[in-house]
Amino acid sequence: MTHPPPPSEPAPDEALVELEAGLEQETIEALAEGNVARVSELVHSLHYADIADLLERLGEDERCLLVEIIGPEFNPEILSELDETVRDGIIDHLGLEKVAAAVAELESDDAIQIAEELDAEELRQVLDAIPADDRSLIEAGLAYPEDSAGRLMQRELVCVPAFWTVGDTIDFMRQSAEEGAEGDKDTLPATFYDIFVVDPAHRPVGAIPLSRVLRSRRPVPVTEIMDEHMTLIADTTDQEDVAFLFRQRDLVSAPVVDRAGRLVGAITIDDVVDVIDEEHEEDIMRLGGVHEDDLYSAAIVTTRSRFLWLLINLGTAILASLVIGLFSATIEQMVALAVLMPIVASMGGNAGTQALTVAVRALAMKELTSTNAGRVIGKELLVGAFNGVLFAAITGIVAWLWFGNPVIGWVIALAMIVNMMVAALAGTTIPLLLDRAGADPAVASSVFLTTVTDVVGFFVFLGLAAWVLL
Amino acid sequence: MTHPPPPSEPAPDEALVELEAGLEQETIEALAEGNVARVSELVHSLHYADIADLLERLGEDERCLLVEIIGPEFNPEILSELDETVRDGIIDHLGLEKVAAAVAELESDDAIQIAEELDAEELRQVLDAIPADDRSLIEAGLAYPEDSAGRLMQRELVCVPAFWTVGDTIDFMRQSAEEGAEGDKDTLPATFYDIFVVDPAHRPVGAIPLSRVLRSRRPVPVTEIMDEHMTLIADTTDQEDVAFLFRQRDLVSAPVVDRAGRLVGAITIDDVVDVIDEEHEEDIMRLGGVHEDDLYSAAIVTTRSRFLWLLINLGTAILASLVIGLFSATIEQMVALAVLMPIVASMGGNAGTQALTVAVRALAMKELTSTNAGRVIGKELLVGAFNGVLFAAITGIVAWLWFGNPVIGWVIALAMIVNMMVAALAGTTIPLLLDRAGADPAVASSVFLTTVTDVVGFFVFLGLAAWVLL
Repeated sequence: MTHPPPPSEPAPDEALVELEAGLEQETIEALAEGNVARVSELVHSLHYADIADLLERLGEDERCLLVEIIGPEFNPEILSELDETVRDGIIDHLGLEKVAAAVAELESDDAIQIAEELDAEELRQVLDAIPADDRSLIEAGLAYPEDSAGRLMQRELVCVPAFWTVGDTIDFMRQSAEEGAEGDKDTLPATFYDIFVVDPAHRPVGAIPLSRVLRSRRPVPVTEIMDEHMTLIADTTDQEDVAFLFRQRDLVSAPVVDRAGRLVGAITIDDVVDVIDEEHEEDIMRLGGVHEDDLYSAAIVTTRSRFLWLLINLGTAILASLVIGLFSATIEQMVALAVLMPIVASMGGNAGTQALTVAVRALAMKELTSTNAGRVIGKELLVGAFNGVLFAAITGIVAWLWFGNPVIGWVIALAMIVNMMVAALAGTTIPLLLDRAGADPAVASSVFLTTVTDVVGFFVFLGLAAWVLL
Repeated sequence: MTHPPPPSEPAPDEALVELEAGLEQETIEALAEGNVARVSELVHSLHYADIADLLERLGEDERCLLVEIIGPEFNPEILSELDETVRDGIIDHLGLEKVAAAVAELESDDAIQIAEELDAEELRQVLDAIPADDRSLIEAGLAYPEDSAGRLMQRELVCVPAFWTVGDTIDFMRQSAEEGAEGDKDTLPATFYDIFVVDPAHRPVGAIPLSRVLRSRRPVPVTEIMDEHMTLIADTTDQEDVAFLFRQRDLVSAPVVDRAGRLVGAITIDDVVDVIDEEHEEDIMRLGGVHEDDLYSAAIVTTRSRFLWLLINLGTAILASLVIGLFSATIEQMVALAVLMPIVASMGGNAGTQALTVAVRALAMKELTSTNAGRVIGKELLVGAFNGVLFAAITGIVAWLWFGNPVIGWVIALAMIVNMMVAALAGTTIPLLLDRAGADPAVASSVFLTTVTDVVGFFVFLGLAAWVLL
């Protein structure tokens, strides 16, 4: 039995997290020393998710060694917790036979997640090696488009006919559990949260949270306690829309139906949490100009994947330089302009990035829509104007004192106001336009934005200077 | 009964989402026309979360009007779905009496979420106006530190003594449900996923998923089917650590214990999803230099909150200008340098941001630790070197052709390699150092990074030029 610690010990979960960090460190040391017995003992006490983390953090060689030491007891759940790049390596190392055994043991949604990343030849071998009914579940899952509800859902679920009572339902579940225990195939999932009521055509007519089943008397008909207002999810729905519905409706599980409205599976919130994490990762990575999380990729793969973004940015940097080139003669006469010009461009870039971050995030969360787009743009323009005036005053005074020339102060102040308002406008409208054009606003917004703020910043500042000062 | 659509109709959830977008638009139009009857009818068919969204998207006046039209039927759940800024306004408009009624009706975790944002005087009035047992639940919740597990948890939960059987447990739950129906206070939560087994000192000794209770025969003792390996969460744990544990362990609910190890509440995954969203929002906003999601704030509030970040950035921009100022004489003799210098700085900034985004995200997900920090830094340096050489070649040739001077090509190429390697190093080590110093890497990393890439970029390029060219 788990005994909670007495009051003087650290809080249980801090102790837990520290304990595991300690175990991880010990495992790494034991691996380095080649102390196989110790590693094997340590790994036994770790949760499968922590073993997955440990594998991710190790170098290539230690990783293979650890996989060998774990050997036949390699928990298939570890595979479903791994980062893709690391998983590919481990699958190669494990061999297809063991992967097939793992896939057969996992629930259909986790098994599909692993199967979908194998190449065609590997997939065929794995499918050939697993029992026929597991195979057909996986094949049916893979038939759905990538990132669809069909891939995300679990095909194992509990559904009962509308004429049953609570008692019938409980008896059915107990019996199926006992058949499972006797070695027959248990067709129910390991854990579930809702029971679905279906009509004779297998279309869902209601859902009942388990807690309600448990709190009702046996003779109560299921139709009396079911919720008829379910959020039905189509099997072809994109997983991001699934995540939105779960978040919006505070769902824990939801029925998935095919084109004919028949119940084909259920999605539970633990799978949706992974989708939410993926989505956020995409947003943050794309805003930072990274194609995908490449922490575990080889240097050469990462170099290639980041190259394109940098190349596009080089293009915009050269464009900005061309604008500066237009004013070479002006700069030659007053080199102070070259000293000050990056300030105008950089402040525009930063102010624009603030507006852009808010807009991209709001679009992703469906908080920014055509209903309030006008109001948001108006507000950002006002913010740009306010901060523009404030920073115009500050930089104007700094430039005046620095170069002892009040006119250069006025020039930079005016350029600052213009560029910060343009930045506010661009920071909000660029993501909106990209979104309306069906593009992902997180991917390209920041390139367009810096192009605008650099070009406008340099042009207005140097142009004004050429006109006023010379 | 909900009848799923025949095959020819659009997929159910697309239809659902479109339907609601249509309803929202209609409601807005009816509001604008002042057609109260129509608005009231439309609002009735909307889910509370959709009403919350609609309120967020409306302007100040329409928002108040809609609240008035919804009137006495204002669902308290709407309040818990609203953005804080919008909620504050609506609470002022509703009046404390109605807010008190709403708080009393919500479950303890949602009620606390609303109570914690009231000011001291409002809170006292609300607490005075609600029944004593609701009040004590809320007061107990507010006694925990902000953003702690104690605030997040639900105090209503189902726990049973270790000597009970499955039958005892089911009878207890049915009886309590019936008492609830007869008007007595039902102390069980509306929905729950696990039953906790406690010892005589009320310390948790095991957890049982409801599906397992339902699938066991009545005489089975609860101790026989319970999981002893629970993840115990301390009531003082920070909510971000709670989210990490849920994600890591694929938890759906977890028991919360006090210092003495006694069971005081339970956290369910739907609350954790909100924390995950908040966390991601913080990360993305801070990387973009925004203090918090300010979509619904007034322009003047947003201006103030963004000012500080821009001021800090102005400081770094001036620092970069000082570096340029050191080389005024050089630029005066060769104005091409002023044209080309932003390219070196901007490429460093972009390459550094890529490395920084990956590092900040990996730190937040606890994927980057002392175990693999060395390997990650080494890899990023290699990526910086690879891409540095590639872009050195490209920009070197461009500069040579543009200004017809091979030496200027060599100078920019060398500066590019140096700056991109420095950027890779800074992009990875700055977040690591901030994290080790206990600061949030997302907040300050990008300022430090651009300072480094601008200063190094300008200094190396102009310095090399001064040395080689003149």
